[in-house]
Amino acid sequence: MPQPLATASLSSFFPSQRTLLGPGPSEVHPRVLQAMARPTIGHLDPEFVRCMDEIKALLQYAFQTQNALTLPVSGPGTAGMETCVVNLLEPGDTALVCINGVFGKRLQQMVERCGARAICLEQPWGEPVDHEQVERLLKAHPEICVLAFVHAETSTGALSDAETLAALARSYDCLSLVDTVTSLGGVPVYVDQWGLDAVYSGTQKCLSAPPGLSPITLSERAQKRIRQRKTPVQSWFLDLSLVMNYWGEGQQRTYHHTAPVNSLYALHEALLMLKEEGLTSAWERHATHHQQLRRGLDKLGIGFVVDKAYRLPQLNTVWVPKAYRDAEVRQYLLKAHNLEIGGGLGDFAGKAWRIGLMGYSSRPQTVQHCLMALEDALQDTLV
Amino acid sequence: MPQPLATASLSSFFPSQRTLLGPGPSEVHPRVLQAMARPTIGHLDPEFVRCMDEIKALLQYAFQTQNALTLPVSGPGTAGMETCVVNLLEPGDTALVCINGVFGKRLQQMVERCGARAICLEQPWGEPVDHEQVERLLKAHPEICVLAFVHAETSTGALSDAETLAALARSYDCLSLVDTVTSLGGVPVYVDQWGLDAVYSGTQKCLSAPPGLSPITLSERAQKRIRQRKTPVQSWFLDLSLVMNYWGEGQQRTYHHTAPVNSLYALHEALLMLKEEGLTSAWERHATHHQQLRRGLDKLGIGFVVDKAYRLPQLNTVWVPKAYRDAEVRQYLLKAHNLEIGGGLGDFAGKAWRIGLMGYSSRPQTVQHCLMALEDALQDTLV
Repeated sequence: MPQPLATASLSSFFPSQRTLLGPGPSEVHPRVLQAMARPTIGHLDPEFVRCMDEIKALLQYAFQTQNALTLPVSGPGTAGMETCVVNLLEPGDTALVCINGVFGKRLQQMVERCGARAICLEQPWGEPVDHEQVERLLKAHPEICVLAFVHAETSTGALSDAETLAALARSYDCLSLVDTVTSLGGVPVYVDQWGLDAVYSGTQKCLSAPPGLSPITLSERAQKRIRQRKTPVQSWFLDLSLVMNYWGEGQQRTYHHTAPVNSLYALHEALLMLKEEGLTSAWERHATHHQQLRRGLDKLGIGFVVDKAYRLPQLNTVWVPKAYRDAEVRQYLLKAHNLEIGGGLGDFAGKAWRIGLMGYSSRPQTVQHCLMALEDALQDTLV
Repeated sequence: MPQPLATASLSSFFPSQRTLLGPGPSEVHPRVLQAMARPTIGHLDPEFVRCMDEIKALLQYAFQTQNALTLPVSGPGTAGMETCVVNLLEPGDTALVCINGVFGKRLQQMVERCGARAICLEQPWGEPVDHEQVERLLKAHPEICVLAFVHAETSTGALSDAETLAALARSYDCLSLVDTVTSLGGVPVYVDQWGLDAVYSGTQKCLSAPPGLSPITLSERAQKRIRQRKTPVQSWFLDLSLVMNYWGEGQQRTYHHTAPVNSLYALHEALLMLKEEGLTSAWERHATHHQQLRRGLDKLGIGFVVDKAYRLPQLNTVWVPKAYRDAEVRQYLLKAHNLEIGGGLGDFAGKAWRIGLMGYSSRPQTVQHCLMALEDALQDTLV
């Protein structure tokens, strides 16, 4: 007879209703949560195939692309990052990796784990990627075939100039590999117009779907490179030549893995809401609430880490004011106000807060709540 | 201004209410769907950490193990398979892979993609793994360090003797790598008692949670092997030494990737329901409804592919009767009865149906519905 192991007292899990102003997940609109709870159907059901086709079209809208190879990877943003890296690179290839935060560093590790060489351009945290230095390295190393960079660094809140970097990649005959996890839906991302080649994102930031999926899109140039590979992609799960047989055109879907059906319902609804609002309006909304937050933070004497010239409206990284302890303030906000803001990562751990106003979290009520809660916390947690 | 691409006419997606008797996803209980729709909270929120601890304990119960390294991988069963393969094997290692269906073949491909050598034992589809042949190969090839096999082959409906195979692995100083995607929750799986080393499953079969996560558990022997690796795991996303820093003990959770929060709510509730029913009762329920289905299929003249000695109660693979076209019957069932059964994979494509009675799909009503719908379909679709 099986013996339960310390599970006798467990019961259903009911989370508190938090205000989510961290670096993700952002809040999920009730319409999206309801979509997620619809009855599960088969991953090869003709109805579900239609849902997949619609998700593809909606993602093409979000990415502003006509790339046929546009789909959500069945794993979180990190899986989307790894998908782009392992499909584009083969052992012996060389990539230029721009590192100005945690996610650039992660890109480097992934590049090296697939047997490729990473030439790294390290820059101060909180600054954008320096395209003059990128050009210098591209010129000096003609063996570079992929330029990898993060459009919006979630660990710092800095926005890099993806258009200029992608143009550089093209002029030096490289493919651009671009992280848009935090940018997509919050600031302009024009995949076709800017000529980005392999782009991944996440569902839990400005798209405001629950975490767990990673939208990607690949240009015709990137697809050509995959078709011309000499070695198989090291990951069977993330091999796009196989995944495409399931996400491809028409009714001939070949089973690759069981798609996360309900998570895809949620993504469908979240993308539909983005389309209803319109991309331009969504970008404007993020900009407006950022300014509202900035004004309030100014009054509280809380300063920004990132220069306003390349500051992300959806991810506000600010210095923890002197005379306060990072963790203590965040715990107070969570306990007293059910409000989550993010701590710093890496170089910024203990020194900075990350206040996300992403997707459904970017609205007047959340900004007001955040400012009032912070004011209260600064009164109550002075060291 | 961004231009929408053919998305103007899209609206919310409302799936039909299907009876899911394919090879997965199985039906999801309303309690589990409701849990999935609860408000998203942060993946580092103390409340969520408690939820993770409970999932771990509930998975230990489901797997009948005390392994500390027991957690759901943030991807479908295929990601769990790849997690076990890439963490256990290094380039130059040799694995014995037992192939008696689609998923054994997939294991071979993953083994080879991480630079290891696969010695393959191929056996007829629909039969269990032959442990005498396994022993012969283990004896002949002392370089084998991993024995990989599928406990319950989802492509054929055959059950192999995991206990005997794992004992063989131990006596030849190998680790066992075991696919329990379709077996967990439907037939006995005793990880500790049988001495299984690296085990993965899926949420969308007998656990009856939505697809998208892959529970895994690793023995102390398997963990030791991972600690002693000479090379990094080729996948950063699936590297257990990193994942463990997030799923580890206590409050010190290090960010690795954003966990699929709502999918984990659903898994928590589904596992809780399994615990409330009790594993033994769940196994008995699956056996009972299998017999009920078998009696009805006998009357309809539909015969089983797999010998009853090693037939899976939760996945009934039957021959498509002569004078019927596979796809036509399945389309009829879907359209006229909202009933999904599975087609054959690989060797069985067009020749066999797979009728799943897994998890919440295994109940008297679904069996009755299936038999009546099949009877109707056989009357209406005779060639």
